[in-house]
Amino acid sequence: MSKPATPVAPPLKDELDIVIPTIRNLDFLEMWRPFFQPYHLIIVQDGDPTKTIKVPEGFDYELYNRNDINRILGPKASCISFKDSACRCFGFLVSKKKYIFTIDDDCFVAKDPTGKEINALQQHIQNLLTPSTPFFFNTLYDPFRDGADFVRGYPFSMREGVPTAVSHGLWLNIPDYDAPTQLVKPLERNTRYVDAVLTIPKGTLFPMCGMNLAFDRELIGPAMYFGLMGDGQPIGRYDDMWAGWCTKVITDHLGLGVKTGLPYIWHSKASNPFVNLKKEYKGIYWQEDIIPFFQSVTLPKESTTVQKCYIELSKLVKEKLGPIDPYFQKLADAMVTWIDAWDEINSPAQSAPAAADAKKVESSSKKK
Amino acid sequence: MSKPATPVAPPLKDELDIVIPTIRNLDFLEMWRPFFQPYHLIIVQDGDPTKTIKVPEGFDYELYNRNDINRILGPKASCISFKDSACRCFGFLVSKKKYIFTIDDDCFVAKDPTGKEINALQQHIQNLLTPSTPFFFNTLYDPFRDGADFVRGYPFSMREGVPTAVSHGLWLNIPDYDAPTQLVKPLERNTRYVDAVLTIPKGTLFPMCGMNLAFDRELIGPAMYFGLMGDGQPIGRYDDMWAGWCTKVITDHLGLGVKTGLPYIWHSKASNPFVNLKKEYKGIYWQEDIIPFFQSVTLPKESTTVQKCYIELSKLVKEKLGPIDPYFQKLADAMVTWIDAWDEINSPAQSAPAAADAKKVESSSKKK
Repeated sequence: MSKPATPVAPPLKDELDIVIPTIRNLDFLEMWRPFFQPYHLIIVQDGDPTKTIKVPEGFDYELYNRNDINRILGPKASCISFKDSACRCFGFLVSKKKYIFTIDDDCFVAKDPTGKEINALQQHIQNLLTPSTPFFFNTLYDPFRDGADFVRGYPFSMREGVPTAVSHGLWLNIPDYDAPTQLVKPLERNTRYVDAVLTIPKGTLFPMCGMNLAFDRELIGPAMYFGLMGDGQPIGRYDDMWAGWCTKVITDHLGLGVKTGLPYIWHSKASNPFVNLKKEYKGIYWQEDIIPFFQSVTLPKESTTVQKCYIELSKLVKEKLGPIDPYFQKLADAMVTWIDAWDEINSPAQSAPAAADAKKVESSSKKK
Repeated sequence: MSKPATPVAPPLKDELDIVIPTIRNLDFLEMWRPFFQPYHLIIVQDGDPTKTIKVPEGFDYELYNRNDINRILGPKASCISFKDSACRCFGFLVSKKKYIFTIDDDCFVAKDPTGKEINALQQHIQNLLTPSTPFFFNTLYDPFRDGADFVRGYPFSMREGVPTAVSHGLWLNIPDYDAPTQLVKPLERNTRYVDAVLTIPKGTLFPMCGMNLAFDRELIGPAMYFGLMGDGQPIGRYDDMWAGWCTKVITDHLGLGVKTGLPYIWHSKASNPFVNLKKEYKGIYWQEDIIPFFQSVTLPKESTTVQKCYIELSKLVKEKLGPIDPYFQKLADAMVTWIDAWDEINSPAQSAPAAADAKKVESSSKKK
């Protein structure tokens, strides 16, 4: 069983960006300082661009507000949501690193059952650097963890696994419930620490939460589009779900893996369930059609890159979900715009001017 | 979310049998006494039928040795393995209860991280009495546990779940490894207590271990055939795997659920890896063809009962796996014999004489 060499601390320092969408001062970073300070941050400021976001001293970061997004992407900026944490995917777009970790600013360091502070980033990195096993379920969970392995009856030909594209972390304290569940169970807290990481099997969809999420940008980046949410859109709080459904279908098609489980973060406060209900209610009934759609999607063999898969998916969204509501036609178009923007910013041939522009913004917004 | 009423202790006392295959005195029951004593035991004595198996005082049990099996099943006894724990499925056949819990005699009571002894049977019952969710993955694991629920993005139409047919428990201390892994990692012990129960998604196979297993006999019993292993057969230690593959394909087809995770038992001693290698080696290469076979099996719509599914599966086994080795033709025939035996012993119309016969054996073998 191949395991990577023990990484030196801090692992992947020059290969990982931390992306944080926010509308407020980033005091929450103080608690994360021991774990995040060696890494570069990409802060995506949502809402009023004239507001100044304070970042604690000593962090290396670049910050983009709406004006920056509009300037860098021009008309393509229409694909980036406003007044919704979906704007975080702009950070994925402009990153130049291989790995992304994204976290919400109401998430703090959790403790494991022994009372030790959990280095969430380190666990995500471990998840991403070890293979996934999507073709057969291992009952002792992640076989690549210390002290675990494949159990009797696990086919040997499947033990090499596949590259891991996504590491989905969980939350102690406030669970990630929808508005109806929040309303029904206002006092429920997640206190159960489940000491497991597992691969979500091929062919199975899951509700991907963007609060505590890491991925390999080179393997799956262009699928991590958080859709059209918030200002001017009929829906909110489905940004990460959308990205998760698209990502899972594409990782399955391309033979990549998605893990969920550890690490936990401490989710500090529940959002307002009444506000959430307003944002979610269309999603709650639309998803009854969306899920069967994604469960039945098959991508053509010729779709051998994430971009090609995503463009094919956008066509299917327009065709199959478009009839439900014009929103999905707009979303399908935005998916194409997103890929155009991704290719413009990231293509080695065309990226020079865009990269220079992004660089300039980085310098001007940098507040050390 | 529907939850069953809190069960009164001991739950399902008159609806559950504990099936134990053994070749030795059942001293291990002493440790289980607080949990098992209220229940009826079915002991399947393997090996030399003249040997006397001692059962600790105070347990209510019936015991079947090879002579009993041959007398009760006649020529159909050929489908019950000899000198292999696969013989346990005879106990499933003659049980008159709705639920079965089966456990190996080298499995003891484990402790949870707080030091409390784990009532494995109670956890299995809880798993079986709450629904499974095979169509979509819930990232907080079993939504029917206290303190958990479905997370944001989980389709509401899928929250009712489906009836749970199987509860697969795990093992602390000696993990259930195959011979090659045992040889490579002789000192590895499972010390990780993962506080989770989860549904194995539809379409995903898993390695089902028979050491610590419960199921709903009415829902899935006839699929719990442990195959031809041991004496006179070219293979061993694949009995539970075989049952697991068949069971998962059939539960998927019938819309039933399979859970894995809690409860843990304490697995006391590793079996001899050299002996195991001899038993397993054909299975290790055969499974490379068997797994793709089971992954691609589709059962006809007309197969609306477990028996019909199993007969269809036996035909496919003969057709698709038969060419690999004559063993699979014999196994396919034994699958049919098993269903014949099941129907004979369990059919309300025909069971009177067989049941009477079994009853007689029960009395004569009962040693209180």
